[in-house]
Amino acid sequence: MNISVDRNSKTSIQEQIKLEIAQRIRSGLLEEDYALPSVRQLSHCSNISLVTAHRVYKSLEKDGLIKTIRGKGTFVKQHTTLHNDTPQGINTISLDPFNWHLSIPDYLPRASFWSQSSVRLPPQFLDMATASIHHSLLPLTLLQASMQQALRQYPQSLGCYSPYQGDPDFLKVICDYFANQGLSIRPHQLIVTNGTQQGMDLFARTFLGPKDVIAMETPCFSGAIDVFRFNHTIIQPIPIDAEGIRIDILEELAAQTKIKAIYTVPTYQNPTGTIMSLNRRKDLLEFAENNNILILEDDPHRELSLFNNNLAIKPPPTLKSLDKSGRVIYLKGFSKFLFPGLRLGIIVADGTIYNRLLAAKSISDLGSPLWLQKSLIPLFSNPQLVTFIKNLNQKLTSRSSFVMKMLTDNLDPQIKFKKIYGGMHLWLTLPPEISADNLLTIAHSRSIHFLPGSIFYPGEPESNHLRICWTNLSDDNLPKALDILCRILNNAISNP
Amino acid sequence: MNISVDRNSKTSIQEQIKLEIAQRIRSGLLEEDYALPSVRQLSHCSNISLVTAHRVYKSLEKDGLIKTIRGKGTFVKQHTTLHNDTPQGINTISLDPFNWHLSIPDYLPRASFWSQSSVRLPPQFLDMATASIHHSLLPLTLLQASMQQALRQYPQSLGCYSPYQGDPDFLKVICDYFANQGLSIRPHQLIVTNGTQQGMDLFARTFLGPKDVIAMETPCFSGAIDVFRFNHTIIQPIPIDAEGIRIDILEELAAQTKIKAIYTVPTYQNPTGTIMSLNRRKDLLEFAENNNILILEDDPHRELSLFNNNLAIKPPPTLKSLDKSGRVIYLKGFSKFLFPGLRLGIIVADGTIYNRLLAAKSISDLGSPLWLQKSLIPLFSNPQLVTFIKNLNQKLTSRSSFVMKMLTDNLDPQIKFKKIYGGMHLWLTLPPEISADNLLTIAHSRSIHFLPGSIFYPGEPESNHLRICWTNLSDDNLPKALDILCRILNNAISNP
Repeated sequence: MNISVDRNSKTSIQEQIKLEIAQRIRSGLLEEDYALPSVRQLSHCSNISLVTAHRVYKSLEKDGLIKTIRGKGTFVKQHTTLHNDTPQGINTISLDPFNWHLSIPDYLPRASFWSQSSVRLPPQFLDMATASIHHSLLPLTLLQASMQQALRQYPQSLGCYSPYQGDPDFLKVICDYFANQGLSIRPHQLIVTNGTQQGMDLFARTFLGPKDVIAMETPCFSGAIDVFRFNHTIIQPIPIDAEGIRIDILEELAAQTKIKAIYTVPTYQNPTGTIMSLNRRKDLLEFAENNNILILEDDPHRELSLFNNNLAIKPPPTLKSLDKSGRVIYLKGFSKFLFPGLRLGIIVADGTIYNRLLAAKSISDLGSPLWLQKSLIPLFSNPQLVTFIKNLNQKLTSRSSFVMKMLTDNLDPQIKFKKIYGGMHLWLTLPPEISADNLLTIAHSRSIHFLPGSIFYPGEPESNHLRICWTNLSDDNLPKALDILCRILNNAISNP
Repeated sequence: MNISVDRNSKTSIQEQIKLEIAQRIRSGLLEEDYALPSVRQLSHCSNISLVTAHRVYKSLEKDGLIKTIRGKGTFVKQHTTLHNDTPQGINTISLDPFNWHLSIPDYLPRASFWSQSSVRLPPQFLDMATASIHHSLLPLTLLQASMQQALRQYPQSLGCYSPYQGDPDFLKVICDYFANQGLSIRPHQLIVTNGTQQGMDLFARTFLGPKDVIAMETPCFSGAIDVFRFNHTIIQPIPIDAEGIRIDILEELAAQTKIKAIYTVPTYQNPTGTIMSLNRRKDLLEFAENNNILILEDDPHRELSLFNNNLAIKPPPTLKSLDKSGRVIYLKGFSKFLFPGLRLGIIVADGTIYNRLLAAKSISDLGSPLWLQKSLIPLFSNPQLVTFIKNLNQKLTSRSSFVMKMLTDNLDPQIKFKKIYGGMHLWLTLPPEISADNLLTIAHSRSIHFLPGSIFYPGEPESNHLRICWTNLSDDNLPKALDILCRILNNAISNP
């Protein structure tokens, strides 16, 4: 274990180390009956006193996560949360041939998103955690037709590698797609990735090292937090207001330290749904320009715009389209509204920033699957795609109205949330004394799942929020899940 | 630019820095007319004297890679090698809005494989560099049928995410495939990756940091060198002999330093084609066991076994099948003999090593495409797959005989090579005074491409080797390419 400690954090060192070990146990990285380092080893490797190391173990023991066997050592205890994606059930310490593995240190971060998203839900569970649209709402028929056509038209692409940046014909149709959205891009600015997650990761690996500072709007997508932690970057959380990331706080930070990059989801922000205003976008670009900062713009939800009084409301233009100097690295995902089963995303970048990201892509995996790219050319060339998105927006509009009405009618008014304008998330805020982390256990006992708000904070977590995805369930299951959720939340308020 | 310098290397610091900048220019990372750091900046950021920095630039100028404009600075010069995968032609310094990009440092390594493999060949070129089998020899019809069936059977998988480790049904058929090869594996030991390149990368990111030592058989796959360099690991080259990686040299190294991992391609080694003997495999495992070292076994070529006197010769068992303690992390690729256009590979690992690699996979890209995995279930369940591989081996056997005969008959006997038993590479050794790097320019002028041997060395390069892939060209083009190659090599010997 490489335990990273932030000595400037308001959270005590003891609590940080405890949190890190607890997360490794809860996520299944450390399995039942594995031997933990001795108090002396923990003290040595984490550079803490013996007393603090001892207290960490006492506290983990009190939480029921570990057990100490006199004369043998400290071991991970069986715990009764949901099954994680852990490979095997190991019953006795003596029989395990892999116990020596713990002597091999690793460089993994404390991974917030992973610890929650690797939970393997029993089939009857109603999942409001996974950020996706129920497959019945996706254009599966259009996709099937596109693939059929590609199988006839490009069979050789099954047997050839893709250029590292992507297939030229695919990149061309993607440019046309962007052009229809007001983003004028040429194929040589694009790199195909395995979802936007890989795009973030390539950016972080290429440009961010242990002494670099990235400013992240907060709360923000925990998968991004994990990526930046994996690359050992210094993360500075920046609060958002109704118009998006706060430039005044960025200015304060820039006065103290060199910021290398800013991460933002400006349109239907994850998890809060906030839309960055056009003025704020311009201010952010100007701030980045003045301080020589790169902007990583993550844009997976733009197409999920809801109607307002039967009018399609377009979100403000992307930061990339306002960028004149190649300062914005734009990540486009298609998993949220087209094809989660294909994991294809796009990086848009310029100049040597582009070249360097391409080098990182080539070293990481030598390029994305050629055949998948070919198989999507007919889809992106199909005029029905626009119709599909319009229809999807209409369906999501009525679904969101239903969600709003149900929550307004049933939730205790002390629980706050905002009107949904787009995207797929809803951010619920409880009174400050109620912890959503604690409610998650109750939720699991009632067979529903959501994401506790605490995992969306790269720094000090706020635990009185939760994120639900209201698009992931079928029409039948959504009301059931919301009903259970309302009861749990209301009950937490009436019986704190 | 972050220029990494190895102060223990036999290559001078000046030469190392020159090589790194030259590679960035040749690979297109630094484009024509980009402004390089001043001599003073270079001296400061690389921690070298002003005199050395000045000499680096003089030497690059002599090689025609850079130019100095009095009063303006030092710039990348137009160079006349092949077009690389660089995005745009930038004509004048003053017009380029992205020149400021060079002020953004990155963490990229000196990437040997990338610098060669990102070369974009003109269409008429005969490519003996790319390691693949010509698509006419691949099972495209079986693949098409498999995908057709999957489109009917699993349409929902287009609209759902894959579990991070992979689809359970796909992992099951992969286990059956391994079982037929004598490797007894259960689904909970598998992670689906984007080719074996990602498998290597996940291993390196999880377990290897700047102070860790990885021992690599040398010469070895340059894509692996790039991965370990990207993770800032200390690479120790270990020579191979006729039986594989030399344990005596590993023992010497272990006496001096802690080795954390060993990288090997034991079967039809890349680039030399060497088969590690069964005894050597056992010795390697014992050595790793005694010294608590992880072994990364890369196995992309096992299925490409040639016939010998009409007998199918099976290579020795995998290290993984001989591994009792979860010490071997096994990487299986399918691009070399089944479907390069799909980029799916597999990691096999155990215990917490597995769990930690899975965490890294989830943070890197949230899993591989579900639909691709589903689309291969019919293929791997199809009994015709075995027949295909047998037929492929027969075709490759006659092709390799042709290659052997042609080279034996036509090459100057001072040029050495070994009989091909499997895989897709041939390693040619020239007299020590002849550099294959220099011959590459001549080859390009004659429209053929190969890989110079120097890129296969993580430490001091030997430049009198070259690697050709004899499976990548069509039946028509192979003799033409070999003929041109023989003339170039023979000419280099007769007119040194």
